[in-house]
Amino acid sequence: MKKLLHCIVFLFALSLGLGAAEIQPVKYVFLFIGDGMSIPQRMSADEYLARTENRTLQMNKMPCQAITTTRSATEFITDSAAAGTAIACGEKTKNGRIGMDTDGKRKLESIADVAKKSGRKVGIVTSVTLNHATPAAFYGKRQSRGMSYELGLDLVSAGFDYYGGGEISRHDDTKNKAYIGDIYDLAAKAGYTVTHDRAGFEKLNASSGKVLAIGAKGALPYAIDRKEGDLTLAEFTAKGIELLDNPKGFFLMVEGGKIDWMCHANDAATVMQEMIDFDQAISVALAFAEKYPEDTLVVVTGDHETGGLTLGFAGTGYKTHIELLAKQTCSSDVFHDKVKALFKQNEKVTFDMVKPVITESFGLQFTDDRKNPMRVKSAEEKELQEAFESMAQDQKKNGKKLVLAALKIFNGKASVGWTTGAHTALPVNTSAIGKNARTFSGMIDNTDIAKKLKEAAR
Amino acid sequence: MKKLLHCIVFLFALSLGLGAAEIQPVKYVFLFIGDGMSIPQRMSADEYLARTENRTLQMNKMPCQAITTTRSATEFITDSAAAGTAIACGEKTKNGRIGMDTDGKRKLESIADVAKKSGRKVGIVTSVTLNHATPAAFYGKRQSRGMSYELGLDLVSAGFDYYGGGEISRHDDTKNKAYIGDIYDLAAKAGYTVTHDRAGFEKLNASSGKVLAIGAKGALPYAIDRKEGDLTLAEFTAKGIELLDNPKGFFLMVEGGKIDWMCHANDAATVMQEMIDFDQAISVALAFAEKYPEDTLVVVTGDHETGGLTLGFAGTGYKTHIELLAKQTCSSDVFHDKVKALFKQNEKVTFDMVKPVITESFGLQFTDDRKNPMRVKSAEEKELQEAFESMAQDQKKNGKKLVLAALKIFNGKASVGWTTGAHTALPVNTSAIGKNARTFSGMIDNTDIAKKLKEAAR
Repeated sequence: MKKLLHCIVFLFALSLGLGAAEIQPVKYVFLFIGDGMSIPQRMSADEYLARTENRTLQMNKMPCQAITTTRSATEFITDSAAAGTAIACGEKTKNGRIGMDTDGKRKLESIADVAKKSGRKVGIVTSVTLNHATPAAFYGKRQSRGMSYELGLDLVSAGFDYYGGGEISRHDDTKNKAYIGDIYDLAAKAGYTVTHDRAGFEKLNASSGKVLAIGAKGALPYAIDRKEGDLTLAEFTAKGIELLDNPKGFFLMVEGGKIDWMCHANDAATVMQEMIDFDQAISVALAFAEKYPEDTLVVVTGDHETGGLTLGFAGTGYKTHIELLAKQTCSSDVFHDKVKALFKQNEKVTFDMVKPVITESFGLQFTDDRKNPMRVKSAEEKELQEAFESMAQDQKKNGKKLVLAALKIFNGKASVGWTTGAHTALPVNTSAIGKNARTFSGMIDNTDIAKKLKEAAR
Repeated sequence: MKKLLHCIVFLFALSLGLGAAEIQPVKYVFLFIGDGMSIPQRMSADEYLARTENRTLQMNKMPCQAITTTRSATEFITDSAAAGTAIACGEKTKNGRIGMDTDGKRKLESIADVAKKSGRKVGIVTSVTLNHATPAAFYGKRQSRGMSYELGLDLVSAGFDYYGGGEISRHDDTKNKAYIGDIYDLAAKAGYTVTHDRAGFEKLNASSGKVLAIGAKGALPYAIDRKEGDLTLAEFTAKGIELLDNPKGFFLMVEGGKIDWMCHANDAATVMQEMIDFDQAISVALAFAEKYPEDTLVVVTGDHETGGLTLGFAGTGYKTHIELLAKQTCSSDVFHDKVKALFKQNEKVTFDMVKPVITESFGLQFTDDRKNPMRVKSAEEKELQEAFESMAQDQKKNGKKLVLAALKIFNGKASVGWTTGAHTALPVNTSAIGKNARTFSGMIDNTDIAKKLKEAAR
């Protein structure tokens, strides 16, 4: 009889592992969302990392993987608001909505709301502004992602335990009808410890109470542009664990938000660094999960694909030179700033004056040496020069043309292709490790993530 | 005690379902390979089918899905020979090799070889030529995929029970050093029933012995160009089941080989029809699996992505009009033939004479009606005209320019983008149903497919 009992217990344990409908509560739940991160972004960063540092992404080694469809209620191609709402709340909505249904009438309950109700502490971390679409979907209930100030109000009233990352955009939007004070002041009044720099951040500890930690003006800097002292997503993640750990457990959402931004810009090299940086934040959670394997679930997903990134390019056929992306030394935004600065310094900027900036930023070489893989061919030089000239003629209208031309030529050398500056409908993959991880398998929908996590954090 | 025994038996059954290392033998093993079929191809065809016929692909509904990496031994971007060898034999090799190792010295054992040794019957079906890279990887052992005649010899000497699909290319390659007779004659001498048309095909039955069924000159026609009486991949699959079924079971490989061809051409509409056609062949196996669920394993995979297909396009932003692909009435090959025929008929072909052919083939309208989604804009008309003129000037050199321009404009209207005429390194997905299906989950490598199937067919 005792044996039979043992057998039944074992059976029960096994059935948990089976990925059955039954999802058990988990003390510690982590959700990582790479904005604009789909399979091409994960695969290219893996190969880039293998070639440049002889290692691969931690997220790609997680034992459970599920292909995840992303469509919104209204479109095959979702935006981040509808995708964030699907992942956070488990319901499809119209592009643009935050935590509300398609009609914009019904407020939805997010996994963060459920976790808070359960007694867990809740943290929301992002590399972009804290009231951007993805993080906002976890605490906000608004008809439009554009209602930044109102989402700031929602952030305070949600009363979660830890917010960390970029600033709150339009926090002091005095012209807004809903204005009742600067969001930072309102947060302080509501009992939050509000910090704005590394010194303040470093002082935060388990006795700081509720925390709103702002890491930068705007979003956190791109990893490729990071300067000493800049706070990183991995630090915000580690701080989250420090602040949130308690006997009732926690839910922590961490967004790598700028992968998307540079996919919109078709800047592959900056994307690679953002991906690696995001993976470092994930590694912090994986190390925690290793300590508490029975009590932790780590889920990594993307909200949609951005850019139509492909791991092949017409000009390079079956060859791949993705390691050449390491030649780029700054984001395309910084390159653009450098060129604009030239125009500010000197009214008569010539193409010859811009060439060294192109070389310094992208490693592109204006040389006759045909063996140099970074050589700018004559047709390419013509393309760059024409883009420069149209920029020189009308900076306002054609300001981005030189950046786009340089990126196109640079990406091509690294065998990377893009088809759009918007999102695509390619599914993403969702990875999981820890308790209930096996339920993330096969082909799932982004709404399933919220449904499963709500079960786990109930 | 009896209860304990029941419990243990149940436990054992459960553990099988767990996707553990242990794979049990399966009587009937099906392997479907979509050449050039990765996640974008599967996702776009699903959406296309939903919009045009209000149904979705059977293969996407299969319960188990695994993201599958495809790199070859030498390249991040594989070709079909190395990918076919990986899927068939479970070992990475150099692009170009068929069933041999990277050095081209060691012959590899394929799942088909293993299945034959086990006493199962073996069938190899493809929509392209029977000695093309993918089918050849299951019976051939050659240093280069280009050795068509030699692969034809391997096909006969492998002695599998059923070969069906396109012709054997260079079957009568009298100039080849290895020439010892027409492959068809050699097959007949070796005891094969060789058929070359529908009449012969329809007479085949379980008493026909070993069968070599040729369905067309070259490859089977594209689904979009199919004429009454043309044999289909689904028919070749059903015939396979009819011929191979026996008490010891069988292994049947079916390739949808022309998805790849039209991805190379960036012809999205023809790809959609090939995908749907391939799915119909899969449905034949799924119906069989429903009858013998305990004895059947059906696996569907792709060998690599082709074309850098993306589900979004710069010109259409977040909107998708993939249903417009239904406006295309013939493959781009047939369109090209129509234009060439015009040139043959008339020395002085004008662009105005070509316009109706463009309209008839792609549904593109030369109209001022701005509300017409198929309207050719003036810049697009200029692009078509320039392509036509360069073709008219030098048909040999610029023959494909008009096709490419028409496809680019047409695909753009349907919100589909491509980045290359070659393959890309995007992973594919592998789907499975039936016995051992759960072992296809998470992130696997294409070599894992052969390893698992060899276990299942041992």
